[in-house]
Amino acid sequence: MAMKMNDIIYKKREGGKLSKEEIDWFITGYVAGDIPDYQVSALLMAIFFRGLDREETFQLTNAMRYSGDTIDLSPIKGIKVDKHSTGGVGDKTTLIVAPLAAACGVPIAKMSGRGLGFTGGTVDKMESIPGFRTSLEPEEFLNQVNETGMAVIGQTAHITPADKKLYALRDVTSTVDNFGLISSSIMSKKLAAGSDAIVLDVKCGDGAFMENLDDAVKLAHLMVDIGTDAGRRTVAAITEMGQPLGLAVGNSLEVIEAIETLKGRGPADITELALRLSGIMVYLGGKAASPEEGCKMTEEALKSGAGLEMLRRFIAAQGGDAAVVDDYSLFPQASVCRELKAENSGYVAQIAARTIGLASQHTGAGRATKEDSLDLAAGVVLSKKVGDAVETGEVLATFYGNDETKVAAAMEAAKEAFVIAEEPVQAPKLIKEIIGL
Amino acid sequence: MAMKMNDIIYKKREGGKLSKEEIDWFITGYVAGDIPDYQVSALLMAIFFRGLDREETFQLTNAMRYSGDTIDLSPIKGIKVDKHSTGGVGDKTTLIVAPLAAACGVPIAKMSGRGLGFTGGTVDKMESIPGFRTSLEPEEFLNQVNETGMAVIGQTAHITPADKKLYALRDVTSTVDNFGLISSSIMSKKLAAGSDAIVLDVKCGDGAFMENLDDAVKLAHLMVDIGTDAGRRTVAAITEMGQPLGLAVGNSLEVIEAIETLKGRGPADITELALRLSGIMVYLGGKAASPEEGCKMTEEALKSGAGLEMLRRFIAAQGGDAAVVDDYSLFPQASVCRELKAENSGYVAQIAARTIGLASQHTGAGRATKEDSLDLAAGVVLSKKVGDAVETGEVLATFYGNDETKVAAAMEAAKEAFVIAEEPVQAPKLIKEIIGL
Repeated sequence: MAMKMNDIIYKKREGGKLSKEEIDWFITGYVAGDIPDYQVSALLMAIFFRGLDREETFQLTNAMRYSGDTIDLSPIKGIKVDKHSTGGVGDKTTLIVAPLAAACGVPIAKMSGRGLGFTGGTVDKMESIPGFRTSLEPEEFLNQVNETGMAVIGQTAHITPADKKLYALRDVTSTVDNFGLISSSIMSKKLAAGSDAIVLDVKCGDGAFMENLDDAVKLAHLMVDIGTDAGRRTVAAITEMGQPLGLAVGNSLEVIEAIETLKGRGPADITELALRLSGIMVYLGGKAASPEEGCKMTEEALKSGAGLEMLRRFIAAQGGDAAVVDDYSLFPQASVCRELKAENSGYVAQIAARTIGLASQHTGAGRATKEDSLDLAAGVVLSKKVGDAVETGEVLATFYGNDETKVAAAMEAAKEAFVIAEEPVQAPKLIKEIIGL
Repeated sequence: MAMKMNDIIYKKREGGKLSKEEIDWFITGYVAGDIPDYQVSALLMAIFFRGLDREETFQLTNAMRYSGDTIDLSPIKGIKVDKHSTGGVGDKTTLIVAPLAAACGVPIAKMSGRGLGFTGGTVDKMESIPGFRTSLEPEEFLNQVNETGMAVIGQTAHITPADKKLYALRDVTSTVDNFGLISSSIMSKKLAAGSDAIVLDVKCGDGAFMENLDDAVKLAHLMVDIGTDAGRRTVAAITEMGQPLGLAVGNSLEVIEAIETLKGRGPADITELALRLSGIMVYLGGKAASPEEGCKMTEEALKSGAGLEMLRRFIAAQGGDAAVVDDYSLFPQASVCRELKAENSGYVAQIAARTIGLASQHTGAGRATKEDSLDLAAGVVLSKKVGDAVETGEVLATFYGNDETKVAAAMEAAKEAFVIAEEPVQAPKLIKEIIGL
């Protein structure tokens, strides 16, 4: 029976449930160029209003997952565990959890994106390490995981083309912020990337896509459901993104903070989050009997330096200069550095993550458009976190970059991020909920 | 301030009210090709779910009205009155009301469309008159109304291009059936066509776009509101379209029935409707003190033959052979003619208009696609109407055409339109409601 896109749009518009066949047909036709953008955007808007149920969301995810290449990780021994963050400010977690989990025997074969926004993505951050290659041949990638324990590469061009095309269309038709569409977009890429289990870090707060807890929990449940329906153990942590994670926001600045954290000298929040997430990864990877035991193992890997050692080997394996781990002067250096000082004393009540993120983008650390190049040395380093006491004249944050005007503009923009209260302030809860364990 | 289409889509999606500036901007940009179909279709779907309020509907109508040429009828003396039907089966009303109203002194300067569906449009029907031209130069058109009293031409190419483009997009994105979009589409053309007052015939029933009374009333109110807001006296009649109007469905067949009606020998329903609508036109045209007085005047124009005489003059003025009025053999003739006979006796309970309309299309009287040519002689003529008694073997309808296979197929398709009941059946009410008087 021939399908018609108009009928599919009508069905969804009237609140009907799309069948697997209908979803497969429209995704295939859209990628092939047989179905025009204007019909798909009408369907997306109808989906915005009518939603997708669990089965439809799963089928849409699957249709996008199989719309292009999928990665076969079966040549890698063991249970491969992936980790994904929905994105926030100062989120260098992957650079810490991956070495910790790998040090505990969990093979990490990760594909990461470039960033559009406050800083670069994981791939951009790693490129601040001299010599580091984020593009490996498939065989090289698989061999490295088997030999070293971990590898992280940039997203290949032919992964989930349907998601790329749909996302670009959603971006210009005000249909981005729909739970079914967001969750299927993320999970289609995760499933195509081939790992056996997935740990999701769903950021929640002013600096995240999900600004409130209810929305973050809803999205987390949807993604865990999709992963489960696809036969992958999937766990989601809902974590704080009201203030930046850790202290550093930027590219090389975040890599340095990740190294410091693996040396046991990281900020409390990023250290706690990395241990918890990597602990869950170790558990899902079958190397621990419980998440708690996993967490103990990753704590041990941190203390013993096994995580740091894994990072060194991983950097070297991908052509990077592992000496950066001990000599931060090997990273790209900022020629401009300015300090923002407190104008009154009290307690830090707020460091608006979004504002700091935009300030970081102003320094040159983030892209406003795909074509922008990054200043890998630029960014912001906080000296305070929410709950800290502060005296007038104390440094709140330092701004780095290579363009005096940009750095000054960034500092100006960052000022309003800080709220100083007279009364002591409680630091926000870091991990709000864990779903799927 | 620069506007962004994405923001306009978002605003409507969230239930906001679009400003005149936003509506003008997107219509202008869409017609100019600066705003792509995929953004407009997303907006249309958001409008489907969120609706348009009275002010937005008016502004959208106006933006479309002024998107291309508008007709200036000011060189025509008097109050020009237009008439529009939302379309049905056997609807030859214009061919009767226009001469009657014109005979009572109301200048009729009408622009009519071609049909896509059960039969041709008014313009197609008139082209069944040998020599008749539906394309006149603007000056010729205006002069003819001043000299003869009426003129009817085909829609010019540059009227409401925004409506044409939007309608084509709605057609392929399941966004046709929205009241704000339907009413603004119809009224943009009526307002661009320049008459001072408008009588709308909103058809209601199985053979019409509005299948139930509530929807028809809702649409009628919306259109009357738009007309009123634009400063045009606008009246809408909600009329029966459960069975075909009159007996004839086709092109020349309907012209002949219109002539018969102007001779005082027409079917009761089309005669009643034509007198009522033309009476309202005479009243709106300022030639009668009340609609009732208007109706008396058009009855008189019918009885006296003034309406028929006006039709003759009008046909001749547009190059047609006015002898058709007295000699129907001058019309294109059908070579095939078949009768459908009743299989049992009783009372006609239903003659499903839509089914008869599709049968008429099968004979060749209607277009399935824009490219189809019409058989102007083809169609269906009923011998019975709902409520009539019928004996087994009596003719229910006669099918005309020039292709034996098509006519046979049409007759087969028409069979299920007829329902014969054992008990007497009441004929449906013809004029259900009049709005705006």
